[in-house]
Amino acid sequence: MKKTNVLIIGGSAAGMVTALTGKMNFPEKDFVIVKKTKDVMVPCGIPYIFGTLASSEKNLMPVDMMMEKNGVTSILDEVTEIVTEENYVKFAKSEPIEYDKLVIATGSTPLVPKWLKGADLENVFVIPKDRTYLDEMAEKLQGKKKIAVVGAGFIGVELSDELNKKGFEVTLIEKLPHILNLAFDPDISTRIHELIESRGLKVIVGKGIKEISGNGKVEKVELEDGTFLDMDAVVLSVGYTPNTDLAEKAGVSVDPKGFIVVDEYMRTNLEEVFAVGDCAQKRDFVTRRPVPTMLASTACAEARVACMNLYDLQVVKTFSGTIAIYSTAIEDNGFGTAGVTEYAAEMEGISTYVGLFEGVDRHPGCLPGSHKQVVKLIAAKNSGVIIGCEVIGGPEAGELTNVIGIAIQNRMTVHSLLTMQIGTHPMLTASPAAYPLIKAAEIIAKKIRNKNK
Amino acid sequence: MKKTNVLIIGGSAAGMVTALTGKMNFPEKDFVIVKKTKDVMVPCGIPYIFGTLASSEKNLMPVDMMMEKNGVTSILDEVTEIVTEENYVKFAKSEPIEYDKLVIATGSTPLVPKWLKGADLENVFVIPKDRTYLDEMAEKLQGKKKIAVVGAGFIGVELSDELNKKGFEVTLIEKLPHILNLAFDPDISTRIHELIESRGLKVIVGKGIKEISGNGKVEKVELEDGTFLDMDAVVLSVGYTPNTDLAEKAGVSVDPKGFIVVDEYMRTNLEEVFAVGDCAQKRDFVTRRPVPTMLASTACAEARVACMNLYDLQVVKTFSGTIAIYSTAIEDNGFGTAGVTEYAAEMEGISTYVGLFEGVDRHPGCLPGSHKQVVKLIAAKNSGVIIGCEVIGGPEAGELTNVIGIAIQNRMTVHSLLTMQIGTHPMLTASPAAYPLIKAAEIIAKKIRNKNK
Repeated sequence: MKKTNVLIIGGSAAGMVTALTGKMNFPEKDFVIVKKTKDVMVPCGIPYIFGTLASSEKNLMPVDMMMEKNGVTSILDEVTEIVTEENYVKFAKSEPIEYDKLVIATGSTPLVPKWLKGADLENVFVIPKDRTYLDEMAEKLQGKKKIAVVGAGFIGVELSDELNKKGFEVTLIEKLPHILNLAFDPDISTRIHELIESRGLKVIVGKGIKEISGNGKVEKVELEDGTFLDMDAVVLSVGYTPNTDLAEKAGVSVDPKGFIVVDEYMRTNLEEVFAVGDCAQKRDFVTRRPVPTMLASTACAEARVACMNLYDLQVVKTFSGTIAIYSTAIEDNGFGTAGVTEYAAEMEGISTYVGLFEGVDRHPGCLPGSHKQVVKLIAAKNSGVIIGCEVIGGPEAGELTNVIGIAIQNRMTVHSLLTMQIGTHPMLTASPAAYPLIKAAEIIAKKIRNKNK
Repeated sequence: MKKTNVLIIGGSAAGMVTALTGKMNFPEKDFVIVKKTKDVMVPCGIPYIFGTLASSEKNLMPVDMMMEKNGVTSILDEVTEIVTEENYVKFAKSEPIEYDKLVIATGSTPLVPKWLKGADLENVFVIPKDRTYLDEMAEKLQGKKKIAVVGAGFIGVELSDELNKKGFEVTLIEKLPHILNLAFDPDISTRIHELIESRGLKVIVGKGIKEISGNGKVEKVELEDGTFLDMDAVVLSVGYTPNTDLAEKAGVSVDPKGFIVVDEYMRTNLEEVFAVGDCAQKRDFVTRRPVPTMLASTACAEARVACMNLYDLQVVKTFSGTIAIYSTAIEDNGFGTAGVTEYAAEMEGISTYVGLFEGVDRHPGCLPGSHKQVVKLIAAKNSGVIIGCEVIGGPEAGELTNVIGIAIQNRMTVHSLLTMQIGTHPMLTASPAAYPLIKAAEIIAKKIRNKNK
């Protein structure tokens, strides 16, 4: 039988980073990566192929090139079985391959609610990471007018805005009371809601859809309250489900939500088998609860941890829980979130103090290109440890969210944050006297001080 | 005699932040701030009043408004003497005021080399934080053609680019071998050099000026190598000297470079007297040497520390040394630096490993508005502790530098950085698989691993 040292199933972000970091850490080992499709999409770029990027061609990850350049063997095939007792995998077309270490990075598939009538009609779409599907979808949308996007998470919001830019009449429908409900508290998400509405999007919140109907193809969407909306197409962006059938059949433990159970080194219950990315279980950094976070950035962090520990356990290099750091952009407005929201903390029984600061992302604020900047900082009430943040601003909002992300991961308190030095520049950041992160921390410190009086 | 609890001398960034944070921490105390001039400039915005902002009017800090809003008394006068034995100050015009606590925030003044012949000619300028001077200077520059900017630190580079944008023929002259020599290593500063040259600026490095000559007003600049350059005006941006005469006369200890000696709480040698901002001594976070760093952002961090400790020593809230975090922008290109350069570390006897990663600040890189992104990370060779970074990118470079700044201030190692989770978004950041900070850390980790083999 053919042999390799490390076999990676899955060629998207998690698989690619595992191969690259693994090969960097263990250059003397052979690495094989198995991809199901030739082309691999940049996952977070997918909404943008419908607008800004204009085609899927521009949103490809150079996986083959990177693998070749770094001496990793790439196989275009599908794994049909993992024989964990004998450490080998079977393929649809190729010969089986034996491995020392197996890394499962099989990703996730868009969820289609089983109860949803009409989900099988023509012009009902989901958003998989599949180029062929997405290209066909883009083509089928041509000439359509009214599109319902169901589910206002990041993908739903981004896709809606892109389709709106292309001239479609878009209605974004969210069952929960607010858009981006899991990522932002209502005081923040309301502002994003207003922004996208001002751009011509129609947004319906607090109402799920009940049924999609039409004669063979989409004609109407019925909401829970009985309203009927005329539609030419529906895009479902209501979540993803981990691809773990293959693993489960091979005896890899899977949790009740379908994720592969992993420890801090990203090891599964089976010797020599690791799992990373969307298919692997996440545990929240703060609440320690399993969370369904699926982010390419999280996947990459997990991949790095897994392959640093493949052969040689590095006690310091473990994964300390998922801190969901997201950011998104609507035109030149940026939004970001890290850690838990105030609401999520409350639901978990964590008492918090919140500091909300509103400023401007340049100084003086009259400089061209300036944006209102808002930072909401969330800290545990008694320790002052920072557990979450939400950010609104301009293009700097992504990295500003990362500043707070690093603070959270270092378990910094608002008090230690207050003595931090920050670099500022008129064209790039808020003013040093009104740096939003520090100002928000000051507000919390004041609340703590008043409580201790 | 009139009395106040806290008297602050100086109305720029350090003084203003001391007053605001002080009042926030001790709302029951009276705060008085003494300003020498009515208008206070946003310090880092000064170069931009010559181009982007078009006037000094748009670059004012709303000090009076902020003071009034927060219940701080503002006095427009000059302090003529500090009587530290009896805790009061004398003014040029107003009645003396007694204080419990005194905070000296008197700032700095542009340096004019004493040996420089012709520095007193008409049309030789410096860049003080003085609105009247700057307005007059802007007016006098009208109709001039050739301007020499002497000194290629941040202010010199920013001012040159702004003047160039306004149509002046600008020659930037730097005595040291590279522009921005103290902030960036040559491999990084060379790229900034090329960028500003491509915008039409003339840059001369490795040659200081010897003399400015002319009949009453600037006509020629002579360089050290004997070259003569025809000029209509000269702007000297060769550094600043701390304003500490007043303090020194009052018995406050001043170091050999003229800075007020302070401890980690920003206290001076005299009971009840604090000093913050450009006039206060800085000690490098990494090398622990005195450094002449003068940044509004550093000043604000010092101000926060001082006033958190005014009445009630907060052992955790001390200043742990100056980490010079700068950023700057040339059009939509951003540059940043934090901690020590590779060269500075070497000069101090710190063995380093360097990780240099070049990528793109959006993903996919073909997205509109993307920039080449470069991160140079510098770590101590044996511990792997991160001690410096240099960043090139787009508008996100300022906050990306802050991400690393927080990592440095948390004394993170490259290994702990490798397990960090980062948020990414196509329009706001690099790709999660090629996030420059992580990739640069990987390069250093590999060097450490190879050494340990």
